[in-house]
Amino acid sequence: MRSLIDELARMPGIGARSAERLAFYILKSESPDALRLAEAIRSVKENLHHCADCYNLSDSTLCALCADPKRDHTRVLVVEQPKDLIALELTGMYKGLYHVLMGRLSPLDGIAPGDLTIAQLLRRIDDPKPDAPRIEEIILGLNPTVEGDGTALYLAGELRTRRVSVSRLARGLPTGGMLEYANKAVLADAIQGRQSVE
Amino acid sequence: MRSLIDELARMPGIGARSAERLAFYILKSESPDALRLAEAIRSVKENLHHCADCYNLSDSTLCALCADPKRDHTRVLVVEQPKDLIALELTGMYKGLYHVLMGRLSPLDGIAPGDLTIAQLLRRIDDPKPDAPRIEEIILGLNPTVEGDGTALYLAGELRTRRVSVSRLARGLPTGGMLEYANKAVLADAIQGRQSVE
Repeated sequence: MRSLIDELARMPGIGARSAERLAFYILKSESPDALRLAEAIRSVKENLHHCADCYNLSDSTLCALCADPKRDHTRVLVVEQPKDLIALELTGMYKGLYHVLMGRLSPLDGIAPGDLTIAQLLRRIDDPKPDAPRIEEIILGLNPTVEGDGTALYLAGELRTRRVSVSRLARGLPTGGMLEYANKAVLADAIQGRQSVE
Repeated sequence: MRSLIDELARMPGIGARSAERLAFYILKSESPDALRLAEAIRSVKENLHHCADCYNLSDSTLCALCADPKRDHTRVLVVEQPKDLIALELTGMYKGLYHVLMGRLSPLDGIAPGDLTIAQLLRRIDDPKPDAPRIEEIILGLNPTVEGDGTALYLAGELRTRRVSVSRLARGLPTGGMLEYANKAVLADAIQGRQSVE
């Protein structure tokens, strides 16, 4: 019992009291329920891998997006984490593929280009699989933070010599917000990136 | 004393208790201090007008921006309120002129084009003053809200037949934010408005 509480308490956002409550819930629940939870945890760890192409989470070699012939295989949106991919996918606005970097460059934390899946991204561009079309556009979808911008800058440099067009997600006023509450950096982006209206 | 407290309590964010505290502060303060406050209030109401060109707040016929020959008089950024102008001006990124609409279209509240300074904006474009250069770009800087978008759409329609290029402030991810916390509308804007990277 002690070791179950300890293991539960190691999860993020779960303190000692919550862990105790969860442990007692498991103790009191029917045996099949508890075993299903154990099995689900085991299964995730054993069966969930990273997609061989884009490093999205997947339970087969290729993820559902990379394996889908209806997606636009000439466009790749580069994100930091699988959860960014999920957020973008929920909009339903994007029909291309993704590439998950598994992090961002962070010299202070010792995270260098070799620690991310940058080489794999460049290989997808330089050396496409025999049956795959050539990648024509890379969309940088890194977080609009200092480290995200640094990573985007590094990637743009690597991509400059390659025959792909490079774009980045728009930056500016968040829809639904009010101009008067936006900070200087957001307003400066909005002025600089202003878009033509037909 | 009662009437001073009542008047103070009518100001936004000042309740009965705060009004009382302010009234007693005025009562106890030296006479010249209190009279300077009274004079400042009177002076604002008597001397602060709207700029004859752009409807910004001004204490002379033309505001300091419209009167400044160093600003780019061929560009006009259209905003809803003087406080939007102040926020944009603080970025230091924009060197053109402004036009304050004094509100936004709102059919539900009965605010029609005639209630805003739209006719005056069109006159600035169609009929520039003898010494002024022709306006070449109108930047729509309305709030990214339903009513702001409606007003922008109406203005874009009015401007279509005129020889000016029309743009709008960029919409997308707010700088410094995280992709995973952005809502669907913001992410959809960011994907649609993606910008080319050289």
